[in-house]
Formats: sequence, structure tokens, C-alpha cells
Amino acid sequence: MVEVARTVSLRYVPLEECRRIAALDGDRFERAAAFSDACRLNALYMIERAGSGHPGTTFSSIDIVSWLHLEVLGDGDRYFSSKGHDVPGLYSALYALGVIPRERLLRLRKLGGLDGHPDVGVPGIEANTGSLGMGISKGRGIAWAKRHLGRGGRAVVMVGDGELQEGQNYEGLQAAAHDGLSGLTVVVDRNELQSDKLTDEIVSLGELEERFRAFGWHVASCDGHSFEELRSVFTSFGGIADRPQALVARTIKGKGVSFMEHPTALREGGGTYRWHAGAPDDEAFGRAFDEIASRIGERLSAHDLGPLELESIAAEDETKRAEVLEGEPESGAGARRPKVTDEYVVDVYGDELVRLGAVHEELVVLDADLASDCRVRPFELAYPDRFVECGIAEQDMVSTAAGLARHGLLPVANSFASFLAARANEQIYNQASEHSKVVYALHYAGLIPAGPGKSHQSIRDISLLGALPGMTVVQPGSADETRALLRWAVEEAEGNVAIRLAIGPSPRRIDLDGELALGLGRVVREGADAVLLAYGPVMLHEALTASELLAERGIGLEVVDLPWLNRFDADWLDGLRGERIFVLEDHSPVGGLGDALRRAQGREVVSFGVEGWPACGTPGEALAAHGLDGASLAERVARSLET
Amino acid sequence: MVEVARTVSLRYVPLEECRRIAALDGDRFERAAAFSDACRLNALYMIERAGSGHPGTTFSSIDIVSWLHLEVLGDGDRYFSSKGHDVPGLYSALYALGVIPRERLLRLRKLGGLDGHPDVGVPGIEANTGSLGMGISKGRGIAWAKRHLGRGGRAVVMVGDGELQEGQNYEGLQAAAHDGLSGLTVVVDRNELQSDKLTDEIVSLGELEERFRAFGWHVASCDGHSFEELRSVFTSFGGIADRPQALVARTIKGKGVSFMEHPTALREGGGTYRWHAGAPDDEAFGRAFDEIASRIGERLSAHDLGPLELESIAAEDETKRAEVLEGEPESGAGARRPKVTDEYVVDVYGDELVRLGAVHEELVVLDADLASDCRVRPFELAYPDRFVECGIAEQDMVSTAAGLARHGLLPVANSFASFLAARANEQIYNQASEHSKVVYALHYAGLIPAGPGKSHQSIRDISLLGALPGMTVVQPGSADETRALLRWAVEEAEGNVAIRLAIGPSPRRIDLDGELALGLGRVVREGADAVLLAYGPVMLHEALTASELLAERGIGLEVVDLPWLNRFDADWLDGLRGERIFVLEDHSPVGGLGDALRRAQGREVVSFGVEGWPACGTPGEALAAHGLDGASLAERVARSLET
Repeated sequence: MVEVARTVSLRYVPLEECRRIAALDGDRFERAAAFSDACRLNALYMIERAGSGHPGTTFSSIDIVSWLHLEVLGDGDRYFSSKGHDVPGLYSALYALGVIPRERLLRLRKLGGLDGHPDVGVPGIEANTGSLGMGISKGRGIAWAKRHLGRGGRAVVMVGDGELQEGQNYEGLQAAAHDGLSGLTVVVDRNELQSDKLTDEIVSLGELEERFRAFGWHVASCDGHSFEELRSVFTSFGGIADRPQALVARTIKGKGVSFMEHPTALREGGGTYRWHAGAPDDEAFGRAFDEIASRIGERLSAHDLGPLELESIAAEDETKRAEVLEGEPESGAGARRPKVTDEYVVDVYGDELVRLGAVHEELVVLDADLASDCRVRPFELAYPDRFVECGIAEQDMVSTAAGLARHGLLPVANSFASFLAARANEQIYNQASEHSKVVYALHYAGLIPAGPGKSHQSIRDISLLGALPGMTVVQPGSADETRALLRWAVEEAEGNVAIRLAIGPSPRRIDLDGELALGLGRVVREGADAVLLAYGPVMLHEALTASELLAERGIGLEVVDLPWLNRFDADWLDGLRGERIFVLEDHSPVGGLGDALRRAQGREVVSFGVEGWPACGTPGEALAAHGLDGASLAERVARSLET
Repeated sequence: MVEVARTVSLRYVPLEECRRIAALDGDRFERAAAFSDACRLNALYMIERAGSGHPGTTFSSIDIVSWLHLEVLGDGDRYFSSKGHDVPGLYSALYALGVIPRERLLRLRKLGGLDGHPDVGVPGIEANTGSLGMGISKGRGIAWAKRHLGRGGRAVVMVGDGELQEGQNYEGLQAAAHDGLSGLTVVVDRNELQSDKLTDEIVSLGELEERFRAFGWHVASCDGHSFEELRSVFTSFGGIADRPQALVARTIKGKGVSFMEHPTALREGGGTYRWHAGAPDDEAFGRAFDEIASRIGERLSAHDLGPLELESIAAEDETKRAEVLEGEPESGAGARRPKVTDEYVVDVYGDELVRLGAVHEELVVLDADLASDCRVRPFELAYPDRFVECGIAEQDMVSTAAGLARHGLLPVANSFASFLAARANEQIYNQASEHSKVVYALHYAGLIPAGPGKSHQSIRDISLLGALPGMTVVQPGSADETRALLRWAVEEAEGNVAIRLAIGPSPRRIDLDGELALGLGRVVREGADAVLLAYGPVMLHEALTASELLAERGIGLEVVDLPWLNRFDADWLDGLRGERIFVLEDHSPVGGLGDALRRAQGREVVSFGVEGWPACGTPGEALAAHGLDGASLAERVARSLET
């Protein structure tokens, strides 16, 4: 782990201060504004401390979240955010209301702390979200249950505007209207931006209010930062007894921090919004912090109250901060991105895609609003006429790719593995059944980074694609192997190829001798007692660490890079040395490489994989929690060799 | 296979007669009407001959299909139907135009003939469909490719109105509008009915035209059986250069056969539409046939042309007809449903669900417009306040179930396995991550019936759910086991359970001694030389047949029913007799029971499963094509034991 010097001291608004603010006399709108700013400050603190998170969207929705919690929600009501990545704001509000304890507030995106996206294991969190588009359906279920059980209260669901590109939203809208579920309220955080571009540039939503009306909903709209207008709308919703209600709240992404606010921030970013994901650097953090803190101070002073008393973090709470600063997916140009090595296989992927695009005019790249994270923006800039933006709509992306492929084009479809392989699974099956060829780039494959939590970690994608006839699943472990596998997929593969890609930095550079060859592994480190097969830069690093530790104990563990996860050269397999074959999965042991090897080879293989739900935390925490760090692996191999 | 007596002689309109009709002089509307009726007649013939198919929806869209092919579509244009189950009409039109040869027309839903749902392996078929909601996205891809490549022509996509409940449609709509894809036209077959009920009763679509407009499309509507109006609309669409166009065509389900037409048919069916799926019985077939044939005759006569000359099927073409009449999912009460045995495990499932509903007030049943096929209508009638209809929207169904489960209810979510496990996969993962409990009923699991084709056959569902923490996947092989497993799922299981269910009749009754016990198999037939593990009534029958055949050769193959597909009792496994363990999968060998056994047991297991794409045909044809019929299995086991 790399130590990163901390130059800004981290402070937050303690519970007592939150209570002082929440008890502000007089104007309820003033109170909400101060409370909301306190939540902003704590959210910013949490993101900075975690080294990752989503400030822009957190700040655009926090005024609404604050108003709801202070003035609207009653005992039987249930609130959650479908977009999920604005959860630092909700955590802050729940902390300020005494629901979330201090110990957890200090541990965003750390093991035993607060998940990077909402999880019901955290007090006050009503629904797991983070993968987009499920919230309206879930809210429908909650409102239906409340009505059926005769319990009072309503479900209030926050959705992002970009999120409304997901088709499931419209299933939920039509069903809730059909049911006449007046106990369901949806609030759209209409900040007009998605990850780093205008919604109108990605895939326009048109007149959102008309959409909701066309699906049978009661619709209102207002300024989402005006507490007066919020009060008026939520009061009016109480009178709607025959149908669900939607509020389209016009908001500003980054609201409350002048340089993060749209449109200023978009203009300063040259058309790209910099503050969607990732912690600001120290300088930006300091400016943002001071701006919010002084606004709170002024408000307290206007009420003749004493200055805001912030609390500093005790030194022992800071020890683990540095190690999280690696491997988070961060679009923001202003985001910290310290490196373990300089190598990102996903950067190499993006670069090779541009090179291949120059040679292959049939190559078309499809994106589902993750162009920065998936490093396909260079291709978009180089070949704008061969770049298809689909918005946050993975199913549409895959079926569009199917249509393109039927007409002689070679589509390369990009998204995070957890979304693409699962959400669009049936569409991939359908495309494959037409015997056309599509390359599926499964970004952010595997356990790490573990901060965003289980909605983003992908430990099932191999199993989700493995039973598809003709699908080859691969994962490169190095920069060179990334180029070679992508070239193979584009130029040689006869059917579909799914390329898993690590999104974070390679913990070490993996040197591979010789050329990539279909179905063959390559020895990365020799050893005489057993063989450990691994794939991807994260797990190859842990495998090598294990081998190095075992060598100190006189045990020779050969480490082999096997990028082919479901196609093997039989002779090569038979020729593997070693008394035992171990497999290290960046995946569940179910449906991964180990299963494929056992099926192909008919011999025993011991798998080490991600058992159970993937842990949320720093890379080191998550690997250790699953016994997949080098030291744990060394122990597990040694124990296994003893039996 | 059961022989079913054929009492009605089958005749069809041969190519020469189709040509005579297509060459009708004078009024082009008259010509289209006669052509369309000829296609109706041949579609009816094909469905009758196949013993299954979808007459109602075929007849509602066939006038539009005819008009498009006679008058609208040019060389560069591409037409396909997203709903897919109206394909007998399209096949008939393509036959009449000389694209599909006679041999294939005679073999709907048979091996080497015409797939039950569209497949690009058939001449003139542009896209694989059958699973709903993908067509607009695919059409978007085709239109995009045409524009990009500078090729002329447009994509015309037929969609069902019920189909528009699928969320993916709205992803495709917004993206096509954003792209300004004027080369894309969507025709909605607005017959107001879905499988067997009014769309407004299932989940209302509201004002469809408004929906399309809200998504940025140019919209027209007309009488979908008026060729004059169709001409006018398609002509007007030629002038729309800036956006895609949608025609909401008001149609009548069953149009052209008086007693199949809505609303008459719905009224006569007591609120249920009988002619959605399945071949009519002989009497109804005869009446429908005569009605259409005499209308064509009258039209020919009015043009002073000779009478319609129909062709009878040669006897040798008829030999295999009887065996297909088993195991098709057929909602229609008028549908033939001959039985191999009287046992349908899905009937038992539906019955047990009602019993459990009486005891468990927390039990809520969810449906995605397959209430008849999934046998949950009895539950709906018994406990209407605990039945949640979601329409054709599996993702919404699952996330709604998640919301219900979070509030103390026990949801049982129903759909076909191929749709539920794939389309809603990420939603199931999300629900599971909340540690609530949902029972997923995966209907129509496995290879058989094979007539509907690969969009409906489910050979990946175990692999799609296997890597989910806490998910138990089971499949009962008998009526008693179905009750016991469902009771276990509802009353004892701690986490999610997925119950695979065969949809067809049990080929034989499986007698199981003793009680169901977690993780244990039960011997169905003893044998000393090897053990064959199997699950589900279809494969247990084939396993027993294999064992019986092997016994004649002196080989003792023990057949064990193992309904637990990913949870085993370790002691029981170790205690299994036999030199070799064989596994018979009603699934791909990838990710099925065999993989789970190898992982659990660390010993060799030989899997027989559905390799490659599932074959379309009669049950016998499909089983034999995959080497999974009893005789083939006996050979494979014998050969394996020799090595």
C-alpha cells in the first residue's frame, strides 16, 4: 500500500453541533438551509476521508434529503435514493438525526463502516441501490406492502435524471399508476448532468414531466433548492389520493460549492463535469470546506448563536486513510489518482481500441454513459461517427449492437461487468443466438476496488456468460496482454468475446514471456511443488506475493497467468507440473475458472475465490476479508499441501 | 410418444395459388385482402400441423405484414416482428413471395423446419426474437448501420401492445429519437389484448400515442385492417426526415375468423381470450379454415377467377405430426392438450400454492403476464388481494418483490425461466443482497417443449443463479416432490429459493420412496455398475429409459433423483455407489448440477447436458439432437463405462 501525505486536516460537524442547528428557532427554511449545509460539510468530509465518492450528485440532492427528513417524513414513511451514489448526503442526515453512529461516519467505504452505495446493513438505509433504475419498482413494492398491510406511511424514492434512461423505470411507473398507488412519491433530482456530460448530450430525456404524465402519474416541478417550493409541493402531494406523484426538482449539480456548481463547473471543465466521482484534491477540498463552513457560521451568527465548532479526527482514526487511495473508478479530472504502478490495463485497452479503429472501419464502440471510466472517450474523439452513446441503458446498448452486427459492423460494447453481464444478460443471449460477433468489454471486473460496494463489484460475470454457446471469456493480466487479447478478439475470434478488465492500477507489472496463444497460460514465476493459476493484475499480484512468501518457507508455488477463462488447450493443461492445481479467482468460486478447468480436465482443482457477498472496504481490507491477499493465500496453499 | 388421431384433413394454399392472388388485377386493396387471407389460411394450417403456435396475434398483425410486403418494403428495407409469436403469418407471406421453400412451410416447430419464434437461420428472417421488448433497440441498430454505411432502406419493426410493458422499449425509443433516426419505423399491433386478458386489466398502457410523443417520436394511428388507411400512413411517414415514426395500428386479435375475434372471443371465453396460444381443436380448425377459404373464394369469384385450389399434405409428411402434441405451453382453453401422463408438475405447483396461501397470510404471488401458463390463476382467484400483476416486466416484478419482502411479506415471483433468470438477473442479485427471502418459480425450465425455440427454452438458468450467495436451486421430478419442495421453500428455507418447473406433462410418473430431505437424492431405480443423477420429470424419464435399455445389456445403471441442484449433503454424496457418476442435465453442462458436484466433491463426474444452442423441434427430435433421449444416453453410458 502506498502512503499518501495528508496536507489538509480533516474536520467534521459533530452530532452536538448538528443538533444545535436542527434546533434553530424561527424560520424553518433557515433551519433546513443550515442543516443541509452541515450535511454537505460532513458528506464532503466523508468523501475526502474515503478518497472516493460522488460530491456533485450528493450536493444536488442534499437540500431535498434534508427537507424530507426535517419536515416531511413521518414514522411510517420510508425514504431511499435509487441512484445511490448520493448516499454520503443521506448518511450525513442520518448521522445528524442520531441514527448512524459516529464510528461509522468515520469509515465511509471501509470494512465495517458505511458502504459506498446504500446497504440495508446500515441503520436507516431502506433499500440496497447503486445499480440504477430499480428504485421505482422497489418503492412500488414498499407502497403496495404498506397499503396491503394497512400500515400508514408512504414510500419516497429519489431518482437521478440520467438514471431515468434505464428502461425498468417505465415498468415501475406504469405498474404503480395501474395500481393507483398514491402512497408512492418519486423525486427526480433534475440536475441535467449525468456522470460527466449533459443529459441532453448523452441521451436526451425530453420533457420529463410529459413522460411521467404519459405514464399516468401526478406531476409537479419546482426549484429543488427552494425549501419554500419544496414545502408547497409536498403539501400538495398529500391531497393526491388516486395515483402516485412525481416531483421533477430542478437542481444544480455541485450546489453549495461555487466552483462545483453547474454550469460554471462544466464550463471550467471544458464541457466535462469534473466533480461527479472521486475526492477533490487537498486544495479544492480546502476551498469547498471553507465555503460551506463559513456559510453555516454566518447563518448561526445571524441567529445570534456561537460559531460552528468542528471536530478533528483523532490520529488513530487516520491510520488507514492512505491505503484507500488506489483503484477507485474516478471520472473527475480533479480527482486524486495516486498510483501503485503507472499501469492501468484499462488505459491500454482504450489506446489499443483507437489503434484498431484506424485499421478496422467496421469497428463501432458503444457506451452506456461510462465513457470516461471505460476509457472509450479517446475513441469517441478519434472516430465520432463510429461511437454510439446509449445512455444508462445497457439492454438497449446490447440489442443495438446486435442490430449493428447483423449489418456487417463489429460492435464493442462497454459497461461495468456487474451491469453489462447481468442487466443485459438475456439481450446478450439473444444476440449470440444470431451467430453474429460482438466484443463485450466488462470493465471493473472483480472484487477491487471494493469501496463502491456490492452493486459495483462483479464476482458473477464469468458464470453469467459461461453457458452461452460460442462465448469466450478472457481477462488480461498486463498491458501487453491487454493489447494482444483485444487484437485477438477483434481480428481473430470467430464468436463473441467478453474481456474482463481491472479498473484500478496494476499493483505490480506482470512480465510475461512469449506471445499470447489461444488457450495457453504463461508461467510468471516458477515453482516445483504446486501450481497456482490466476488472471488479472490484482490477483496475479496476490498470487506472486503468496509464492514469494511460500518460497521463504521452502515451498515452490508456480504462478501461471491464464487469461483464458473458459477455453483451454488440452495438451497444455495436461502438461502442467505440480502436485496440486490451485486456482485464484477474481470471482465467485461458482462458475469461474476453477469450474471450467474441472469440467475440462476431470481432475481436482482447489479454488480460492470470492465467497459470499463481496466485502466493502479498502483493497487490502476486502482481499483479507476473503482470504485472498498474498499472506492468506500462502497460508491456505501451505495448509492444503499438508493434507 | 402418443399417437393422436387426425380427423381433419390438412390443406394449404400452394405457391402457385399465392402467386395468382398476388397478381390480382385492379384494386390493390382487394389484392392485399386476398393475399392476407391466403397467409391467414397457411398460418392456421402451420399452427394446426405443428400442434402449437399463436393464432390470435398472427391474425391481428397479418394485414399489416401483407401490406408491408406487397406495397411498402423495398430492396434495402428490413422488416421483423419484435413480438415474434406472430411469425406464422410472416412465414406465410415469405412463402407466398417465394422466399421460404415448401419443405420448411410443412415443418413449423420441427427440426430443420421453421423455428417456433423467428430465427435468422430461416430465409427472410432478419432478427431473432421471441423474448419481448428487444425489437426497437435492434431496429435502432439496423437503422443506424444503414445510415452509417450509406445504404438505403429503413428498418420496420412490429411490436405488440402488451410487449410495450417491457422497459427496454423505452430505452430504444429515447435513443432512436436522440439519434434522429428517421430510418426507423415502429408499428404497434394495438389489439388491446395480451396473452389472455385485456391489456387494460393486466397493466394499462394509457394513451400509447402520448407515450411515443413524450419520447420524441412522430406518431400516427389508424385502423390496422384498413389497407387504405395503412397506405396513407406509410406514405406520410416517407416525409418525416428528422425522427423515427410510430404507427399505433388499432387491430382485432383473431381478426378474420369470426369466433376468434375480440371482443366476441373474449366474451365467449368468459373474460379469457382462448386463442392466444395453441392449435385449435379439429372442429374449431375446420370452422376457421372454411371461413377464410370461402372469403378468398368469393374474392376470386368477384374477379371472375377460378376457385381456390388447395393442396393436401402427402401422407409421408404427416407421420411425425402426432408426437408434437405434447408439452407445449398453451394458455388457450380451446387448445389441444393431449397427455403423456395426466401429471403436470406445474398444475400441482399451482394447487399447492393455493393451499399454502390459506395458511400463510404473508404469501404474495407475483406474475408477469403468464398467469395461465404458470398456473397461478387459481391463486389469483382465491386471494386476489395477494396477487400482484406486473405485466410483461420481469425486472419490475423482481424489484417489486424485493420491496414487499423488506416489509415482511413472502413473495413468490413467476415467469418462464429463460426470462426471469436472465432478464431480471441483476434485480435478483440486488434483492438477494438485502438478505430478504423471495421464492422464484422458474417455469418452462429446460429443453422441452422444444417447439417454441431458443428464446423460450431455458438451459442457462442454473448457471445464472448459482453464484448468488444464499440461493438454493431445486427442481422437482414428481407431483409429490413438487409439493414438498414448494412447502420447503415457503416454510423452511432461510434464503432465496429458485424452483425450476417443467411446463409439459410428465412423460411417466416417478415414484419416490421416503420423504424429501435437504441435499439428499432418492434412488428411483437400482443398479450396481454406475449412478446416473437426474432431475425433473423429463430427464428422469430419459434416465430410466436408458437404465432399462442398459439392463437388457447386463449393465446396472442406478438412477437417482437429485432435486437439489447446488446444495448437497456431503455424507450422502460420499456414500453413493457406482464406479462412475453420471449427471443428466436439463441444462447446459456449463454451470449445471455437474459443475456443482465436482466443486463439492472433488471427483470426476461425467455430464450429459444440452450442448450448443437448444434444438427446435418435437420433444423426441430435440432430445435426440442433443443425445439426451434414453437410447442415446444408454449408448453414451455404455461407451463411457468401457473406457
